[in-house]
Amino acid sequence: MKIAVGQINSTIGDFDGNADKILEYSHRAAADGMELILFPEMSLCGYPPMDLLDYQSFVSENQRALRRLQRDLPRDVAVAVGYVERTTEGCGKALQNVVSVLLDGRILHSQAKTLLPTYDVFDEDRYFEPARSQEVFEYRGKRIGIAICEDIWWQSDALPGFRYAQNPVKTLLDQGAELLLAPSASPYYAGKQEIRLGLLRKIASSSGVPTVYANMVGGNDNLVFDGYSMITDRSGALIAHGLSFSEDYITVELPNQEERPSIRLPETDELESLRQALVLGLRDYVRKCGFKKVHLGLSGGIDSALVAVLAAQALGSENVRSFALPTAYSSPESERDARHLAENLGIGFDVLPVEKDFRAVLESLEPIFDGTDAGLAEENIQARLRGLLLMAYSNKFDSLLLTTGNKSELAVGYCTLYGDMAGGLSVIGDLFKGQVYALCRYINREREVIPENILTRPPSAELRPNQTDQDSLPDYGVLDGILELYLLRNKTAEQIIEQGYDDGTVREVLHLVGRNEYKRRQAPPVLKVSSRAFGTGRRMPIARKIFEAQV
Amino acid sequence: MKIAVGQINSTIGDFDGNADKILEYSHRAAADGMELILFPEMSLCGYPPMDLLDYQSFVSENQRALRRLQRDLPRDVAVAVGYVERTTEGCGKALQNVVSVLLDGRILHSQAKTLLPTYDVFDEDRYFEPARSQEVFEYRGKRIGIAICEDIWWQSDALPGFRYAQNPVKTLLDQGAELLLAPSASPYYAGKQEIRLGLLRKIASSSGVPTVYANMVGGNDNLVFDGYSMITDRSGALIAHGLSFSEDYITVELPNQEERPSIRLPETDELESLRQALVLGLRDYVRKCGFKKVHLGLSGGIDSALVAVLAAQALGSENVRSFALPTAYSSPESERDARHLAENLGIGFDVLPVEKDFRAVLESLEPIFDGTDAGLAEENIQARLRGLLLMAYSNKFDSLLLTTGNKSELAVGYCTLYGDMAGGLSVIGDLFKGQVYALCRYINREREVIPENILTRPPSAELRPNQTDQDSLPDYGVLDGILELYLLRNKTAEQIIEQGYDDGTVREVLHLVGRNEYKRRQAPPVLKVSSRAFGTGRRMPIARKIFEAQV
Repeated sequence: MKIAVGQINSTIGDFDGNADKILEYSHRAAADGMELILFPEMSLCGYPPMDLLDYQSFVSENQRALRRLQRDLPRDVAVAVGYVERTTEGCGKALQNVVSVLLDGRILHSQAKTLLPTYDVFDEDRYFEPARSQEVFEYRGKRIGIAICEDIWWQSDALPGFRYAQNPVKTLLDQGAELLLAPSASPYYAGKQEIRLGLLRKIASSSGVPTVYANMVGGNDNLVFDGYSMITDRSGALIAHGLSFSEDYITVELPNQEERPSIRLPETDELESLRQALVLGLRDYVRKCGFKKVHLGLSGGIDSALVAVLAAQALGSENVRSFALPTAYSSPESERDARHLAENLGIGFDVLPVEKDFRAVLESLEPIFDGTDAGLAEENIQARLRGLLLMAYSNKFDSLLLTTGNKSELAVGYCTLYGDMAGGLSVIGDLFKGQVYALCRYINREREVIPENILTRPPSAELRPNQTDQDSLPDYGVLDGILELYLLRNKTAEQIIEQGYDDGTVREVLHLVGRNEYKRRQAPPVLKVSSRAFGTGRRMPIARKIFEAQV
Repeated sequence: MKIAVGQINSTIGDFDGNADKILEYSHRAAADGMELILFPEMSLCGYPPMDLLDYQSFVSENQRALRRLQRDLPRDVAVAVGYVERTTEGCGKALQNVVSVLLDGRILHSQAKTLLPTYDVFDEDRYFEPARSQEVFEYRGKRIGIAICEDIWWQSDALPGFRYAQNPVKTLLDQGAELLLAPSASPYYAGKQEIRLGLLRKIASSSGVPTVYANMVGGNDNLVFDGYSMITDRSGALIAHGLSFSEDYITVELPNQEERPSIRLPETDELESLRQALVLGLRDYVRKCGFKKVHLGLSGGIDSALVAVLAAQALGSENVRSFALPTAYSSPESERDARHLAENLGIGFDVLPVEKDFRAVLESLEPIFDGTDAGLAEENIQARLRGLLLMAYSNKFDSLLLTTGNKSELAVGYCTLYGDMAGGLSVIGDLFKGQVYALCRYINREREVIPENILTRPPSAELRPNQTDQDSLPDYGVLDGILELYLLRNKTAEQIIEQGYDDGTVREVLHLVGRNEYKRRQAPPVLKVSSRAFGTGRRMPIARKIFEAQV
């Protein structure tokens, strides 16, 4: 059977635009003589639509788009497309997450999703009723089964601390499935492509059934879908795959009768994947929010340097503007380095000192601050004035402000709410400081895009004389190590200390993480590139006892 | 049987403090000759602990506190207490939400929760495995069943658009339950007490089994648990109830053999309930976050006036400080009204003009703003300077800043991110403008707490000359009407227009709501007092097509 995958970038709620894409790819498949084309999970309505699903109009528009596909799709090619469907029975949630196979104007087969991920960033139990049954369908003499995204993950070790009680793939195989379609909306994190391929290999090699995995591509708020659709033959060998982080169209003929040799996952550098994920996430957030331009504060430090590079790569230099916002404590080196970077990237650069504004504010506060020592309040005023100037630019010129904080800072609250945290998107808020350095080094691998000086000077917020980050924080190597164990692997203080970290440091870090939840609650969406990012994937109460620093 | 209810205010993660309370109330029950005391759902660990449940230490500490209860509870009285328990079977989520009956140092009976709410603010499928069975237990010759919170809601009309497939109460009654215990953590919204009583009445009157409903009390972030535990006799008549919005201890002897007449739900004024809910939510957020003092900007308008009143009621006048932050466009009347209110309340009051700061910022921006017309950017600068000064006060004096925006503004984005939206808690962000007026009138019912002038002047942000809210927004009566249909009842544009609202206005409002999601994502927690509040109960994508204004 000749099979295509339409690896498309859907926009949530853009039913016409998404249907247009599905039609375009399907006509191409028809022209190529394909017998079946598979699109990603919920590609007709976009994923995740979240509480838009509570509106009848969302579901109706999605149905209207489906009816349009039935009318306008090319004949003689089966088109498998994902959307949401109302349940008709009396009990349970009102909707199902379905994939239907459209053929010659009618729905040949519909399969609802059985396993509904409800952990990390996923909330599918909130909306969907699981499939009550899994059924294969016959097409061109073949029995075909559909397992939607999580349905192939039923016993993956990558699931956080639980296993599903049901294996929908087994049910399909029990019914004699000779081909397995796996439409998905699986967001990126480092190493996930190998995990997915492992799942497909296991299914195919243990059953002798080829698999076709169609993954969504594109950014939707904090999530970056990385594409990289895959097709395995009956032995589990990878015989075709789509591009990462880009729309793509791939085809294969199954069985491949040895003429198409097994291919390997290309040796993608993890840093290159990370870079592409951030670029796509940034580009799509800006575009899908209706912006064309972005801007950011360039401190002369490494975090904002990285965000500037990514923004220029995502949107083109001409759409990025940067600002140095020196305080009285800023070194001339910082401004020089920032300017140098902006020149390297060809992005706009202006200097907006905040010193006079700072003095005006201190004067305003004089009646109530009189007699107090300068401290955190004064530092934050400067950071917030920077945020204020950058937001003024945003309002005036319709440009989206990017925040430049990293995950290590966001974790321990080494950042100013409404100051450096101000902006519409946190681009590198899921990268520990060490990863920021590594990615900058990678970007500089061929030529010095980021001035070397930025990579080697000690990090500083420059909000008081001679300040460096290490005045307030443990060495970043130690901090990142503790945070990784705590945030990504859910280790407790005791378990982290057992790994050799200093008792007091561990408890201090965990205390800071807990105490700063209120800041993260007000942070913009953070592009998720790890297995556990701040935001919708980590939901914590604010008003509570910070017990975890003690045990 | 002599039964008590311990209606306690637990703090999430404060295992020792919560256990102390349970011990204290249990000893009182023992001294009173009670045979059983019932505590709310998850009262030992606090509710909702959210992703703290991912940490082994949370579950272990909760178990440690349970073991302490087993040792230290008084003998001869059964104590039913809620906490989390690890599941022991191979599949499914790692935890269960359980209530156990402790008697003389051992666990007499454990019941897990069957129906796991996963809608609105609830995420229980994210954490918990449902009960695999429901079993009654015998105590003092009586068969007793436990139905935890949602377990009694199985077919309530108040559930948003679905019904559960299972009725755990029926299973318990099938087993001959003679008494039903319903430990709960049910957050407040207007009218919910009647809904709960209706459920209990229906169960009792249709089965002839008395019910004991123990509800949590206290604020936890956005949620306000209102207490108001209830006991019905076998006919469904209410025979005892706990206080609303306050810890309480109630007792009853069952069967009540006519000696205790049925009582009615007291005629609580909805506005009085609303006021108490906001006061408790505010007080507990401040206290459980470790603050003692709060402050806010007093604009001379009605929203900040209401928040000042609530803060003074929650924390005492001496812990509230207020600031007028006039711009060049502020009328002297605003400042006079604000001062007058502060005097009425006995709260601190200072004037911090932002005019000089504003001029300094405009001067700083001159190089890039040159040649542009003053507009939204300039308005927002002033609002953000106010936020900046108030946050500086927060940092300097360890006082929590309250935001004062209402739900109507927050819905359409008539508020400035990092400006008037800056703060740790949104006190009235779930009250439409009309409700703000109604509550202010209620507060003034006996004497003029809020100066009449504040209630009668047209609302204005005072960020440009002669500005009023109605320059930018429909009349608040119309706006609130549209928003209520859209936000609380999930009506579509077409359905709202059918109810008689102007087509263009409806579409404009829905467009504004969608377009301003990014602001709400960065808002502080909003105290929930309606069936659908902004925040964790309404989860919307930001980067998407705003289709809903069109259909």
